[in-house]
Amino acid sequence: MNSAQKSIAEGILFTDQYQLTMAQLYYRAGLHEKPAQFDYFYRRNPDYGGHQAGYGVSAGLEWLLDWMQLARFRDEDLVYLRAHRDGNGNPIFHDDFLDWLSRYGNFDGITLRAVPEGRVVHPNVPLAVVQGPLAMAQILETSLLNHLNYQTLIATKAVRIREAGRGRPMLEFGLRRGPERGVNAGARAALIGGADFSSNVGISHVLGYPPKGTHAHSMIQAFMALGGGELGAFRAYADLYPNDCLLLVDTIDTLGSGVPNAITVFEELRRKGHQPAGIRLDSGDLAHLSILAARMMDEAGFTETSIVLSNELDEQTIWQILTQIEDEASMYGVDAAAVVGRLVYGVGTRLITSEGQPALDGVYKLVAIHEDGRWVPAMKISESPAKTLNPGNKRAWRIYDHRNKAQADLLCLEDEDPRQMAQITLHHPSENHKHRTLDAGEISAIEPLLVDVLVEGREVLDRPSIDDMRALRQADVAQLDAGVKRFVNPHIYHVSLSDKLWNLKQELIRSAREDSHHR
Amino acid sequence: MNSAQKSIAEGILFTDQYQLTMAQLYYRAGLHEKPAQFDYFYRRNPDYGGHQAGYGVSAGLEWLLDWMQLARFRDEDLVYLRAHRDGNGNPIFHDDFLDWLSRYGNFDGITLRAVPEGRVVHPNVPLAVVQGPLAMAQILETSLLNHLNYQTLIATKAVRIREAGRGRPMLEFGLRRGPERGVNAGARAALIGGADFSSNVGISHVLGYPPKGTHAHSMIQAFMALGGGELGAFRAYADLYPNDCLLLVDTIDTLGSGVPNAITVFEELRRKGHQPAGIRLDSGDLAHLSILAARMMDEAGFTETSIVLSNELDEQTIWQILTQIEDEASMYGVDAAAVVGRLVYGVGTRLITSEGQPALDGVYKLVAIHEDGRWVPAMKISESPAKTLNPGNKRAWRIYDHRNKAQADLLCLEDEDPRQMAQITLHHPSENHKHRTLDAGEISAIEPLLVDVLVEGREVLDRPSIDDMRALRQADVAQLDAGVKRFVNPHIYHVSLSDKLWNLKQELIRSAREDSHHR
Repeated sequence: MNSAQKSIAEGILFTDQYQLTMAQLYYRAGLHEKPAQFDYFYRRNPDYGGHQAGYGVSAGLEWLLDWMQLARFRDEDLVYLRAHRDGNGNPIFHDDFLDWLSRYGNFDGITLRAVPEGRVVHPNVPLAVVQGPLAMAQILETSLLNHLNYQTLIATKAVRIREAGRGRPMLEFGLRRGPERGVNAGARAALIGGADFSSNVGISHVLGYPPKGTHAHSMIQAFMALGGGELGAFRAYADLYPNDCLLLVDTIDTLGSGVPNAITVFEELRRKGHQPAGIRLDSGDLAHLSILAARMMDEAGFTETSIVLSNELDEQTIWQILTQIEDEASMYGVDAAAVVGRLVYGVGTRLITSEGQPALDGVYKLVAIHEDGRWVPAMKISESPAKTLNPGNKRAWRIYDHRNKAQADLLCLEDEDPRQMAQITLHHPSENHKHRTLDAGEISAIEPLLVDVLVEGREVLDRPSIDDMRALRQADVAQLDAGVKRFVNPHIYHVSLSDKLWNLKQELIRSAREDSHHR
Repeated sequence: MNSAQKSIAEGILFTDQYQLTMAQLYYRAGLHEKPAQFDYFYRRNPDYGGHQAGYGVSAGLEWLLDWMQLARFRDEDLVYLRAHRDGNGNPIFHDDFLDWLSRYGNFDGITLRAVPEGRVVHPNVPLAVVQGPLAMAQILETSLLNHLNYQTLIATKAVRIREAGRGRPMLEFGLRRGPERGVNAGARAALIGGADFSSNVGISHVLGYPPKGTHAHSMIQAFMALGGGELGAFRAYADLYPNDCLLLVDTIDTLGSGVPNAITVFEELRRKGHQPAGIRLDSGDLAHLSILAARMMDEAGFTETSIVLSNELDEQTIWQILTQIEDEASMYGVDAAAVVGRLVYGVGTRLITSEGQPALDGVYKLVAIHEDGRWVPAMKISESPAKTLNPGNKRAWRIYDHRNKAQADLLCLEDEDPRQMAQITLHHPSENHKHRTLDAGEISAIEPLLVDVLVEGREVLDRPSIDDMRALRQADVAQLDAGVKRFVNPHIYHVSLSDKLWNLKQELIRSAREDSHHR
């Protein structure tokens, strides 16, 4: 795409055709400026095939806001829409609607509450609540889903990999096999969810983190083809980057050539007063090779050098590698904790694609329309009770118990405040028989999850830094029960409805069923 | 991101940090302008878990060319690189190298041959061959992989879904759950690989196809909340879009409410002289509902209206739906072929994410360096023989048999022309005992796969349209054996080395092993 094409493809037309045809229908029916509320939420934590997340991490909001600020129907967009033709060759979009779009086709009327980026989130709890004129709130759907679904998906994968790595540093390497321009959003989400740094130079620059990297096999190959060999390549690298000397040791033979040559070069660096950075292992049995490479470096007196692992890493492979190191290190007279303590994870494809579950099932559902001075709840029933909407203008709260662990997320109606309740009844969103009560005395804190972000298009929240988002994530993860954090078969975190919301939902289900029977 | 940030993040710095540190090393070693050749190829057809592709479809080249034309080291990029610091606080990039980048840091010296977009491709056959100054050919790696891996992945998924659908129309609906901005590239690749149209308005505009869509559940819900009901919503839609009237019928009860209401509205349209377009089914048993909805529409005299299916479709679900319709239709007195003949597939998440295999394992490997007037082959041995490089400056050919079916892709050295050979020996790339010979008489045609695209940065190939690419894809798929096209456990298409290339490879493996033993 050239830049004019990009401006079209990434502006207000970054949406689905049906949003525009529906918006015109609302316009024709006089509903286009009626205030509507849409909730954005996802229904299931990502399931990677045999292992499912116990929680998610919210991400993507800031880039959605950036998009919303710029996206509006410009002349070039309208010229294009004016040319759309239906099956009979007649214009699909009419002049009065296009004129309205040219004047009001922006997000200046949108009010948005959202869960801040970096927070731990759960299924069925709205991560974003949009209120605004029906037509523009409808047109927003596609781009909102696009921005929030992908970054939340990747931040969720990143926190899993982070947690699997027992606190050792994690680098994001996904640019080359990730989804084209989406990799920049993915790298950002990875930095929020768990990565310390990214290899992606441009996005690191934009986000204010130094990009990280080592070198590739091709550098060794080039020196080999020209007669310099692996040792020559290592020496050239060490001469140029004496304080960042991290050497890729698996081009020829990791233990037979790569590690010994790296040690030779590290010794030369040491004599010149430099501290070598470490080695990278990119193939073979990474656990076994880590142990033996660590031993070789220990014997040469390099006990501090890092061992960077890469090659299809994810939470399961890292978990397996750490388990193997713990099982196997002592056989080689090596302290397992010391080996683990020098590991760094380079995580690429499986993070940036959320391998095993490459999409979040986030949806954006109409839950209320403002009519005669009040919010009228909107309903959608599904054959699957879990998919039946939680209707109305709601608030979301997180309840902490006396251990300061998050106990449940509670959805209430707007006029309820669980902090004022002596006893809170928690209803399962769809299963009638599942409910329980909490006395105020069992609760240490209740906090609202949604914060005001936009009020009629105006940003009212100071934008947090990525470091702020990471701090939120770390704090929230620390307040999860260990069972919820299990990588495999986690304990299910409670997401509940208040009495009042539960009753409203049942009432709307009954009335929708009756409507449908009277048809 | 704002637009200044986007310009940084999507320009020349859309690369990995190590490309830049390696480039500086080549500069320091005086190798930066030495001509080098890199091959881009993938090693395995995507395996979606229990079912693997038998072939791929090439895509992404044109957008790579767009990127290469604009990407160069500008002042703002160099200011940033100048600020990078190593572990001791010293600059990582030195002034002389940055000055060189400011003058020569562009792709004007790159020569590129490639397999045209839309063509059927196979593992280990280079889809792109880059020749150019080592430093810039190295820096190109990340972006080239990013552009070609993702679009080739999606075009490959699209052709599978297309082939599963027995020629019925296919719409791309992936924008909302796809990978942020990557969805535009994904929609393009889908259109090359098999989709007829996309719901994505912006990218459809850019590529010159009309965007397609119906309406959402929210439209029905809005009318229900305001007292208009499903029938009111359908009527409003039909009034506004009488020649494109496609109604989503599963909001309340597909057969009890949606289809009868749709038929009511279709009858109204017919009386006004309009031809209704059809219905969309988005939940439930799509095969069963298609049969019964078709019967209801048949009985009302609407035998031509489409049935658009959506909801997590991919090649397996479509195949299963078609099988079930064939098994089940006659029980309801409906002709299965007539039901299938009105289907349209709306394919979203599973296409845009290549569900089951969300990344192509494409690599970019140094295969030769020009030295003393000739190309010196570069080698990389792997413990896995299948990963050992096919070295040197090569050509790729496709051989057709007398049935005009593609029989094998053959890699030769640059000075070989299989069209001149009386007998061609086909060597398996890594397994010594697997080889066979073809007599010229058994062959109907031999064609080169790689075409000249860039000669020292200048585009020498007229850019084909997406329609051209689709025509290539259709012709290539038609020339595949049925066994290679199986969705599950396909017959393995032969990719072979010529005698001369096989011998060179063995010689380089021997010599690399000896080097490593003499160390």
